[in-house]
Amino acid sequence: MPHPAPRTWKINPSRLQARLEQLAAIGALPGGGVSRMALTREDGQARDQLKRWLLELDLDIRIDRIGNMIGLLPGKEPLPPIAMGSHLDTVGAAGIFDGALGVAAALEVIQTIREQGHALNHPLALFNFTNEEGVRFAPDMMGSHVYAGGLPVEAILPVEALDGSGLTVGQALEAIGYAGDLAPGAIIPAAFLELHIEQGPVLEADGQDIGIVEMVQGIYWTEYRFAGQANHAGTTPMAIRRDAALAAARLVNAVRELVQQAGGHQVGTVGQLELAPNLVNVVAQHARLIVDLRNTEAHRLQQVQDALSLRARQIAAGEGLTLTEKALVRFPPVRFSPILTGIVESVANAQGLSYRRMPSGAGHDAQMMAGICPSAMIFVPSVGGISHNPAEYTPWPAIEKGANALLQSVILLDEQL
Amino acid sequence: MPHPAPRTWKINPSRLQARLEQLAAIGALPGGGVSRMALTREDGQARDQLKRWLLELDLDIRIDRIGNMIGLLPGKEPLPPIAMGSHLDTVGAAGIFDGALGVAAALEVIQTIREQGHALNHPLALFNFTNEEGVRFAPDMMGSHVYAGGLPVEAILPVEALDGSGLTVGQALEAIGYAGDLAPGAIIPAAFLELHIEQGPVLEADGQDIGIVEMVQGIYWTEYRFAGQANHAGTTPMAIRRDAALAAARLVNAVRELVQQAGGHQVGTVGQLELAPNLVNVVAQHARLIVDLRNTEAHRLQQVQDALSLRARQIAAGEGLTLTEKALVRFPPVRFSPILTGIVESVANAQGLSYRRMPSGAGHDAQMMAGICPSAMIFVPSVGGISHNPAEYTPWPAIEKGANALLQSVILLDEQL
Repeated sequence: MPHPAPRTWKINPSRLQARLEQLAAIGALPGGGVSRMALTREDGQARDQLKRWLLELDLDIRIDRIGNMIGLLPGKEPLPPIAMGSHLDTVGAAGIFDGALGVAAALEVIQTIREQGHALNHPLALFNFTNEEGVRFAPDMMGSHVYAGGLPVEAILPVEALDGSGLTVGQALEAIGYAGDLAPGAIIPAAFLELHIEQGPVLEADGQDIGIVEMVQGIYWTEYRFAGQANHAGTTPMAIRRDAALAAARLVNAVRELVQQAGGHQVGTVGQLELAPNLVNVVAQHARLIVDLRNTEAHRLQQVQDALSLRARQIAAGEGLTLTEKALVRFPPVRFSPILTGIVESVANAQGLSYRRMPSGAGHDAQMMAGICPSAMIFVPSVGGISHNPAEYTPWPAIEKGANALLQSVILLDEQL
Repeated sequence: MPHPAPRTWKINPSRLQARLEQLAAIGALPGGGVSRMALTREDGQARDQLKRWLLELDLDIRIDRIGNMIGLLPGKEPLPPIAMGSHLDTVGAAGIFDGALGVAAALEVIQTIREQGHALNHPLALFNFTNEEGVRFAPDMMGSHVYAGGLPVEAILPVEALDGSGLTVGQALEAIGYAGDLAPGAIIPAAFLELHIEQGPVLEADGQDIGIVEMVQGIYWTEYRFAGQANHAGTTPMAIRRDAALAAARLVNAVRELVQQAGGHQVGTVGQLELAPNLVNVVAQHARLIVDLRNTEAHRLQQVQDALSLRARQIAAGEGLTLTEKALVRFPPVRFSPILTGIVESVANAQGLSYRRMPSGAGHDAQMMAGICPSAMIFVPSVGGISHNPAEYTPWPAIEKGANALLQSVILLDEQL
């Protein structure tokens, strides 16, 4: 009996949903959502579940020294694998889709292809990357960054948890049984595709089925510390104050103003700000804030950052404060492979999916993989743009469309690469 | 042998200094300064020391139900007493002068008068008020507020500590042995005078010996809470953000702007501000800040407050936020007795002291006593205007001048009242 043509293959949506719900039960929060921070017991349990699924499919399992898990299905030819994947770790109070979708969908794609009884030319690889979120150990995208050669594994294993417990990455990997011996980067894929929720409101607002992610915005995080003088709020004349809180407020306003002037894809946020001594009747001596700036254009991002740095110095001088500026993160924009985004676009057209080409505002493992192989991402809509929140949601029919787009993109890649 | 004329009497500066240093040793901090929060063991020890001094001078000691301590020296006539005093409690990391100076100087004045071997016409009273600072139990100026009838003692004894321990004012008074049985307000003085450090920079900057405090600024504390929507800092377009941090920053700027427009004695401060979830890559959902506004003119203070409330509503509307405004403190300005400030001025002129008439920017027990008897305050300079800080300092010769001004003011009051 001849096999149906690969272009007509479909993933099994109820199996995909069941697996996502099974993962969601690991670290489930009482009011909904999930907490499965990197290298915790819950992360270990989710990895164990993934391992069971990989074994059920007879995949070859590799664990590298930073704990990245790789499941391999042989192909007909001795080629590098077409890879898919994402991450199973979450933020502290997360939804059930962020990361888990990309892993479960990769598994579903591999199982669907395998069930058709014949392998593709290329081997297939599933990646579960260690610590994408970075909320328990810094930096984020740790596993993929190490895998792509951006960070030496020896420098990362001794990194201590942000909770001050002193626990290192290496110890936490040992504790959950995922300190492997594969050299990170040992298997260079022919291509990497990541299915992920958008985590923004654009696809839902425009009524599109999928987003074809052409690039990831550049991200700058910069810490500003203003130091002035603590003084009595009642007895200190306005003219002699050196008020760190006022300077911080002026910088927050400057961020919005400079971002609006820049326009385009420029965004800017101050989500973290602390005063000291933080007392109602004491002029603030210290203020600390972190500015998050993102843009798809590297030079525009740098221009906004330069203008902000200048503004911070002017604000400090105007209020008689000392200023310390520290660059915490400088990720340049990453452009995904035009060949891969073209393939996803062909698939979307062939399947009658509405789509838009778009940048990603958030960072993802695929941007690290882009450093070692052609990579791209497929987004599915996030209801209300909500993510990093138990309320994160994507309707199951939308998940199905995204997973089928991933399946067909892999099939097309196998033909064209 | 005839007594020297009262106008030539002087306090004993080394005895006053020794007593202040003895008090400073109770709750002394390793690096200097003192921590003697209201109704702690250290506050109890300082009260015990004061009690020993009062007994050495054969004063009649009364303790009222809120723990205010009163020491009474009889006069020649059956008149209400001329009263002096302040408080022995401190903030968490305080200097050694705030409060303690007014108590120790009152004791020194009484001892000086007593040593001259004959009493004045009026009895003299020393007050040590309970919990002026309000950092362990709210509100501040607790003892004097209760004494002057502004708060019923029955409502204050069950008030719980701000540290969440559940300890009440009544329990803490019992624990240190200062739950007395005198009805607050039982003894109405003929007048009340409080010697205090300025806690601001004005007297030092102008090179004046003392400040004659004509009034206490009105104080408004208002809490503003903005609520918006937590969102991803990378994926949320600027146009749809509802950013509580931005609103808070705009309100901080508005405070400075409105205060500068008002001019005069208007001051305004935002020393306390918190964001939630306070994460670098999440648009702030909540911002909470408290605005401290002070003015000597009640109607100007209210005007600035009204303008600020309007501005807060405009800011919230502009960013699509909900706003909650809560009046935490509304102390109107308090005008001290012109008779008493006139007497202090006569004394300053007679003693060749340089002085200025001035408002107090901080709240003091004397403003509560002003509700039941003619009251006024004398300020001595604060080096650098620093207070509520172990670095708080007033040179000893300046302390001596202030204490002598207090002594001579009491003598002149005794003649003229």
